[in-house]
Amino acid sequence: MKIAIAGAGAMGSKFGWHLKKAGNDVILIDTWDRNIAAVRENGVVARVKNEEIAEKMPIYSPSEIDEQKENVDLLIVFTKSMQLENMLNSLKPIISKDTYVLCLLNGLGHEDVLAKFVTRDHIIMGVTMWASMMTAPGHITFANENGNVEIQCLDPKGKDETKEIVKILSDAELNACYSENVMYSIWRKACVNGVVNALCALLGANCKEFGHTKEADELTRNIVQEFADVAQYEGVNLDRSEVIQHVESLFDTPHYPSMYQDLVQNNRPTEIDYIDGAVWRKGLKHSVPTPYCAFITRLIHAKEDILKVK
Amino acid sequence: MKIAIAGAGAMGSKFGWHLKKAGNDVILIDTWDRNIAAVRENGVVARVKNEEIAEKMPIYSPSEIDEQKENVDLLIVFTKSMQLENMLNSLKPIISKDTYVLCLLNGLGHEDVLAKFVTRDHIIMGVTMWASMMTAPGHITFANENGNVEIQCLDPKGKDETKEIVKILSDAELNACYSENVMYSIWRKACVNGVVNALCALLGANCKEFGHTKEADELTRNIVQEFADVAQYEGVNLDRSEVIQHVESLFDTPHYPSMYQDLVQNNRPTEIDYIDGAVWRKGLKHSVPTPYCAFITRLIHAKEDILKVK
Repeated sequence: MKIAIAGAGAMGSKFGWHLKKAGNDVILIDTWDRNIAAVRENGVVARVKNEEIAEKMPIYSPSEIDEQKENVDLLIVFTKSMQLENMLNSLKPIISKDTYVLCLLNGLGHEDVLAKFVTRDHIIMGVTMWASMMTAPGHITFANENGNVEIQCLDPKGKDETKEIVKILSDAELNACYSENVMYSIWRKACVNGVVNALCALLGANCKEFGHTKEADELTRNIVQEFADVAQYEGVNLDRSEVIQHVESLFDTPHYPSMYQDLVQNNRPTEIDYIDGAVWRKGLKHSVPTPYCAFITRLIHAKEDILKVK
Repeated sequence: MKIAIAGAGAMGSKFGWHLKKAGNDVILIDTWDRNIAAVRENGVVARVKNEEIAEKMPIYSPSEIDEQKENVDLLIVFTKSMQLENMLNSLKPIISKDTYVLCLLNGLGHEDVLAKFVTRDHIIMGVTMWASMMTAPGHITFANENGNVEIQCLDPKGKDETKEIVKILSDAELNACYSENVMYSIWRKACVNGVVNALCALLGANCKEFGHTKEADELTRNIVQEFADVAQYEGVNLDRSEVIQHVESLFDTPHYPSMYQDLVQNNRPTEIDYIDGAVWRKGLKHSVPTPYCAFITRLIHAKEDILKVK
């Protein structure tokens, strides 16, 4: 199977590495020059149990994708949320009407972007619990040993082909399964990001520091409540107390979530518009009040301005 | 006139210095040992146009106030909001039924605390636009040259005596006037603190950095709206657009507001419960929703926990 991975950061590189290792024909597309140069020289180098294992595969910048390149059977997107549409525009030359696009990004509403490029029966949405870190250009470390991937085609017509993709992912040791309600999982994960990522970034704290404040429980309840109120109008009935428990299960890990890393450590724009900001926007559409999501989105954007991120 | 000033920080020391210089009989009460020692040795030393001018006056810790001390005619409170009630309890020996208590603290609801100690016709509420900084124990610098004081007795019965106090303050170059609607001024100033102090502390920014973010205007509008909604139930009809303009007039000053100084610079507890937190509490009482005030209060408390302030 010919697979392209758009965005060769920590997660994209990890998926590329596994899929190549399992014998697939994989290409990477990335925008970071130093990463492209490193992968061209040494492949994607993954540190696995103190051993460095390299997998060589082609890597291109979006501008190098032209009609000369072959169409792909599967495109897995692993960009930052705000880069997704631009990336897909650059990849038009390798997207045909038969290409499946698999989206494992955090956040809400990416299916609307994908729908501009492929039909619904070729859009596969999913969540993954795998975690990975980029330690240098071309170098990754796996951040957990027990992850999984849950995916579902937006249209039942694509179910059989999606199940084949499940098999390809599992054969590559990515522990995949077909989900009958992946939007539930996406919203549930968005709740984690909407509470923990957003508040850790805003407060300059790790999960544990935030989780141990006296306010953590009430803040979590208030935000999850808004997510659940809006999710209902999108056909997803979140089990609030289960989701709250799930969010709070992270309160003992001294982990700095990705939005903290983006904003505080690297002064980069956050994905807030695709998480709390998306709930706020969807809430406006359905006339559901989401003052907490609105406020947190504004505060994160104010902090981006103060830190002069770009 | 025998005047006591409770809380000899930047503002209390400034008022004490002026009132003593104008010939009043002034004592200070403070809880900070090094400040007490410094004032005992050299008086309150104010830097005025590159000159240091000392005014000697007695200073006591609250525990030194006993029945041996003379009652005062006027008690001006300049503590932190959360220390007010404890301080007044310590000062009972010098508060008689004839003592007027003047409160110039930022924040809302202090009159309820004062009412536990004196009758309404002896409670004088006010706001001041004077600003002062403490540069070392016993040493202050005036932070502006054009301030004023606006005061009003809670009960019209105390109006004449309050006007005498206006004269005493003005004679001491504190530019005072009698207000016919001081609660309006108190709420208006609380809006400034509720927006600028709270958000600068939360975002780690000065007024200008915050004011120049793209979100500043909407955040200001949302918070002022909640203050105005609640103020209405407390008999104060804020002119929203005037108040918003007033708040936004500070957006060009690179000043770090007091709550930023407390929380970020000195890791001390903030007065949030007396500002946004007070609006949230009063909102609950009147069934007025104040999600922004609630959220910001919780976030500031979470930040206090993360920074381990005490």
